[in-house]
Amino acid sequence: MNEGDIREQLRPFFEPRAVAIIGATNKRGKVGNVIFENFKRNKEKGIFKGNIYPVNPKLDEIEGYKVYHDVSELPDDTDLAVIAIPAPAVPETMKKIAEKGIKAVIIITGGFGELGEEGKRMEREILEIARAHGIRIIGPNCVGVYAPDTGVDTVFLPEEKMDRPQSGPIAFISQSGAFAAAMLDWAAMAGIGIGKMVSYGNKIDVDDADLMEYFAHDDQIKVMTFYIEGVKDGRKFMEVAKKVTKIKPIIALKSGRTEYGAKAASSHTGSLAGQDVIYDAVFKQTGIIRAEDFEHMFDLAKAFAKCKLPKGDRIGIITDGGGAGVMASDAVAKFGLKLAELSEETIKFLRERFPPHAVVGNPTDVVGDTDAERYRLALEAFTKDPNVDAILVIVLFQVPLLDEEEVINIIADYAKKSEKPIVAVAMGGYKTDKYARMLEEKGVPVYPTPERGVRALAGLVRYAKYLRGNEK
Amino acid sequence: MNEGDIREQLRPFFEPRAVAIIGATNKRGKVGNVIFENFKRNKEKGIFKGNIYPVNPKLDEIEGYKVYHDVSELPDDTDLAVIAIPAPAVPETMKKIAEKGIKAVIIITGGFGELGEEGKRMEREILEIARAHGIRIIGPNCVGVYAPDTGVDTVFLPEEKMDRPQSGPIAFISQSGAFAAAMLDWAAMAGIGIGKMVSYGNKIDVDDADLMEYFAHDDQIKVMTFYIEGVKDGRKFMEVAKKVTKIKPIIALKSGRTEYGAKAASSHTGSLAGQDVIYDAVFKQTGIIRAEDFEHMFDLAKAFAKCKLPKGDRIGIITDGGGAGVMASDAVAKFGLKLAELSEETIKFLRERFPPHAVVGNPTDVVGDTDAERYRLALEAFTKDPNVDAILVIVLFQVPLLDEEEVINIIADYAKKSEKPIVAVAMGGYKTDKYARMLEEKGVPVYPTPERGVRALAGLVRYAKYLRGNEK
Repeated sequence: MNEGDIREQLRPFFEPRAVAIIGATNKRGKVGNVIFENFKRNKEKGIFKGNIYPVNPKLDEIEGYKVYHDVSELPDDTDLAVIAIPAPAVPETMKKIAEKGIKAVIIITGGFGELGEEGKRMEREILEIARAHGIRIIGPNCVGVYAPDTGVDTVFLPEEKMDRPQSGPIAFISQSGAFAAAMLDWAAMAGIGIGKMVSYGNKIDVDDADLMEYFAHDDQIKVMTFYIEGVKDGRKFMEVAKKVTKIKPIIALKSGRTEYGAKAASSHTGSLAGQDVIYDAVFKQTGIIRAEDFEHMFDLAKAFAKCKLPKGDRIGIITDGGGAGVMASDAVAKFGLKLAELSEETIKFLRERFPPHAVVGNPTDVVGDTDAERYRLALEAFTKDPNVDAILVIVLFQVPLLDEEEVINIIADYAKKSEKPIVAVAMGGYKTDKYARMLEEKGVPVYPTPERGVRALAGLVRYAKYLRGNEK
Repeated sequence: MNEGDIREQLRPFFEPRAVAIIGATNKRGKVGNVIFENFKRNKEKGIFKGNIYPVNPKLDEIEGYKVYHDVSELPDDTDLAVIAIPAPAVPETMKKIAEKGIKAVIIITGGFGELGEEGKRMEREILEIARAHGIRIIGPNCVGVYAPDTGVDTVFLPEEKMDRPQSGPIAFISQSGAFAAAMLDWAAMAGIGIGKMVSYGNKIDVDDADLMEYFAHDDQIKVMTFYIEGVKDGRKFMEVAKKVTKIKPIIALKSGRTEYGAKAASSHTGSLAGQDVIYDAVFKQTGIIRAEDFEHMFDLAKAFAKCKLPKGDRIGIITDGGGAGVMASDAVAKFGLKLAELSEETIKFLRERFPPHAVVGNPTDVVGDTDAERYRLALEAFTKDPNVDAILVIVLFQVPLLDEEEVINIIADYAKKSEKPIVAVAMGGYKTDKYARMLEEKGVPVYPTPERGVRALAGLVRYAKYLRGNEK
């Protein structure tokens, strides 16, 4: 299968001309109702531009929409079917979908392979139909697709239960549906922009490799994040990952790392978690960046989405709190980076301009009575210093004389014009949160602890090094 | 010095009959003004019950308060002096304080030992006066004390810059002032209750050991958290810590762990960070629980403040999301705990009552269509199971059929009546945040990731084991 194929095959999942919702109902809260309401709401908002065709043999109309009694009756522009009917009825429906010529199907329904032999048999039957007719399937036993820019939203949790994140350059792929829902909800609060989310559940067909390939060529997506419990086709995964990581960074959170976790994964999605050392080796070989947990995954994603790649591993730290500078220095060592040795020019430049109680060095401590100008001076010197590859700026917004908006503009300005990645750290409460968001909106990733900021930089450094290694 | 002494000596820092604010001014935003305003506001609210005596030779009155021109004029009930005047004037003022018979002094002023030899000389002079007259000093170069219940607040950052946390059972002691301010601000947002905060800066007198001893006998305080860059008197620290950890848990975040960090610490507070392996050994020997970062520190503090201590290390996991259960299982292994092997009774009890697609085991997965009742059944079985020592309950509040308040009440109920510690994990956005706070208010600590929940349990397990080891 070549790349063009994949892109054509998967496109209807994200940009359907018309979606059939099989099992649509007017019963509030039911899966088939929430999905219908999602599309309807997005259509009314002008986000979903395709047609919506509810399918239900027992209804003629839902909220003004004509209901089709059978798949065979669907209009010919239907290019995506979302299935939310009981499992035993799915194989028969798949046959009708095949006859109708629909080539993309999301099977939300659970009760297949995860429940035992009969479910596995049904999965095989469904897959045979799909293979025979060139149909691609996401699922079954999944929450499907969320694509805020095109209004595709098969997440069957209503907005009262789960917020939807804004659009952005991150693709998020999750084997687990509940985790996907929790993460979307979290991302909405954290201000993380998700361009496309796919949760594939039992993944009998469309898998991680297919999605990597698709998102590699999706201009909206700058970085991909995967939550994986197990990979079925290891060879395909490695081949595709190796190719795609040269185009875009891929971050993977692989659970089932330990014996306990692997056992839990096997009762969850039936995944064979495999030996963790093997996954570790695969990730390293293919240039996939491994995340320790979901905070780490999105910390990295944010950095990749917003930052340039560093030319080396020498970190410069600017702070207005000495303690935070110490923690950041510890983290630089912990995550295998180097603390930059500032050039003589930088030292001289700052000594001449800073008051005597400010600490010129690395970290440079602009100290608690700082104004925004000291940050500007430090950033000016650090961005020009040939010994500094990447910059961590810690701002404790609580200090009394600092004009918050001014320092935000200064940091954003240097992040834009410098070739070096700049990440920020801000520790504090509600006000800090507000300022952190302002800074993020201006393109600088902000982290709540020095450790997490440095850990994100370490991800950039490692990926940049991987790319350079491949250039040779 | 015996314990009774320390408690009497430090009491005025937290419960002064009258506070003199030396350097009080009516100039908005100045340190001497913010501190005055803090006391005044708390007095008006009825929280600060002592008298407030501003001291400034150039003023007669500030906002209705009589200003004393000199320390010698202060009324005799003055038992706490807060100094916010330039460093060179401090030794002279200390002499007057000594003559006046005031025995507790917070020196906010910076510009002492951290700046060089002349500063160190002044510190020695101040300390000699203090020692000769039985005066205890917090500082210099510090933000001092925050005690919400008695209204002592020398944090010189106004409320526009920094929120104040609610009161609670956690004592927080920080060498770094900026870090202390950022943490108070953060704690206010995170809903962490801080009973007393002390930031001692250059700590020429009152040190970690003194504060441990004091808080050991402070009934409000259930757990102590320390941010330490370096310990001066190692022997005293160890002696006191060994004694105090048998009474209450102590959590320490020690930075300057690496070569980079140690160097940064030395330019920050002039602390000799010392070899980290030595600190590690000291913490282990004295039963102090070491935190990796500030999130870890407060994650632990929350668990100790709210939970009973476990009898062993066998963890039971209940979840409504399989993926989260896998992550929690991994974390159990990672943090050196055991996944409990459920008793036959538990398995039978749950199998008989759960639908077939729910997973009975450890983790027990009540699955995505759960109601609150399944949580109740699982908690009932787990709390009774002799093979389970501590319980992690993961609630993804996004699932459609779960009554949020019902499940919150159920978890809180079992946390109260069971002898086993129960911690909760809730991943999600704003709504989850709201439910997590409701659950915390009912006495159950809630964490945003499975890893952090398990890591907190690991702290309880380790401390309980330490206590048992000392009983023998």
